[in-house]
Amino acid sequence: MPKPLILVSNDDGIDSKGIKLLVELMQQLGEVIVIAPDSPQSGMGHAITIGNTLRLTESYIFDGVKAFQCSGTPADCVKMGKGFALKGRKPDLVVSGVNHGSNTSISVIYSGTMSAAIEGAIEDIPAIGFSLCDYDESADLSHIGEHILQITSQVIKTGLPKGVALNVNFPKKQDESIRGIKICRQTRAKWQEEFDQRVDPSGVQYFWLTGNFVNQDKGEDIDEWAIANNYTAVVPVSFDLTAYHAIGTLNKEWDIF
Amino acid sequence: MPKPLILVSNDDGIDSKGIKLLVELMQQLGEVIVIAPDSPQSGMGHAITIGNTLRLTESYIFDGVKAFQCSGTPADCVKMGKGFALKGRKPDLVVSGVNHGSNTSISVIYSGTMSAAIEGAIEDIPAIGFSLCDYDESADLSHIGEHILQITSQVIKTGLPKGVALNVNFPKKQDESIRGIKICRQTRAKWQEEFDQRVDPSGVQYFWLTGNFVNQDKGEDIDEWAIANNYTAVVPVSFDLTAYHAIGTLNKEWDIF
Repeated sequence: MPKPLILVSNDDGIDSKGIKLLVELMQQLGEVIVIAPDSPQSGMGHAITIGNTLRLTESYIFDGVKAFQCSGTPADCVKMGKGFALKGRKPDLVVSGVNHGSNTSISVIYSGTMSAAIEGAIEDIPAIGFSLCDYDESADLSHIGEHILQITSQVIKTGLPKGVALNVNFPKKQDESIRGIKICRQTRAKWQEEFDQRVDPSGVQYFWLTGNFVNQDKGEDIDEWAIANNYTAVVPVSFDLTAYHAIGTLNKEWDIF
Repeated sequence: MPKPLILVSNDDGIDSKGIKLLVELMQQLGEVIVIAPDSPQSGMGHAITIGNTLRLTESYIFDGVKAFQCSGTPADCVKMGKGFALKGRKPDLVVSGVNHGSNTSISVIYSGTMSAAIEGAIEDIPAIGFSLCDYDESADLSHIGEHILQITSQVIKTGLPKGVALNVNFPKKQDESIRGIKICRQTRAKWQEEFDQRVDPSGVQYFWLTGNFVNQDKGEDIDEWAIANNYTAVVPVSFDLTAYHAIGTLNKEWDIF
């Protein structure tokens, strides 16, 4: 069997610690090509670059691995992979991360890491985004390699349901090993924003967006529960946003047809 | 009954033709406050500004309407509305648009217009994104006002199911009036990217992202069908991305638990 072609991207930028680990692990499983942002793209959601130009430059940051840095977003990176850098070859797998910081719960919609994975899924390529629930850029990653290999090998073996990407979050390193892997649903939660209001040297007001995560969900089948209990959380994610249950409600309630 | 407080945003920028129309219409229905980007933010997806500062400046572009322009993304605008500009008042409705260009089908995930609406829905505020399937910035908007008023009035009257925002797309102006309003599901489709490859004056390569829309869906209950048949398409959209049908599949198929 030929080795699978694995496209690796992320949102923290090509020189981050998380993508270095992911590239090393993926080399054990297949032929690796990296296309990652040339600068941090956290919080970019599913942004793409329209109305501006894109650059793609070969990078020699990973020994023996073909790699490119892209001036765009994570979604741009995957688009440039399939549309240009791979010269017509289709990857067998897209992996993104390992993100420095949680992408559980509602954070999935703000996540550049997950946008790269979802961009793969849109192209019918099995795709996984990996994130570590530790915002420290020098965080200890020694406890997550085994699960990354297990989950990726499983996806290479059995594929994924059509239209689905995986949002995988790992708990922060603790004294005990991670207890296992849980398939979860997205936690119902939100960010309670606070704006840190300051004045620049010219006397003009500016703001920093900050916020607190508010969990509104008491379920034990949610990704936040898994992380809080030292499990790896796997949420299957869809890019069909249709709220199917609402179609009937609107058709029944509305009187403007 | 007090007039509802309506927060208006968009992604084409505060000086676009589409938001001007939306503000004028919303003034018929409630008390309006505008917080919109100070520059075009198309394709920004659900990006938010972290790692950089935000500016918020009062704008006098709309006669008699409190308005602010924000240096951030559409999602930032809604966050700054509830977190700062509204001084603790909660809007009764968030509306976004009218976008110059289609946000049907998979475009919903790249859409800044819809990210403002979804940001409202996350806060349990009924929210609607409006888009016109005409990319011309001076497009004729004379045929959509009536449906904007009808749909918005309906949402003010009956609310929306919890966790749901509306993605409303209007067909381009045609000789006959729009034929009606259809509740739809998101069309299964993708963008087939093409990269327009050029060389800058310094001899360095750069790219423009272009692409063709590929409809892979033959259904008649989809937003693309509605638009093609001169109907207004309303898709209820969820920000819970969990692919619930996949949870059982993964639990059954995987052998790594």
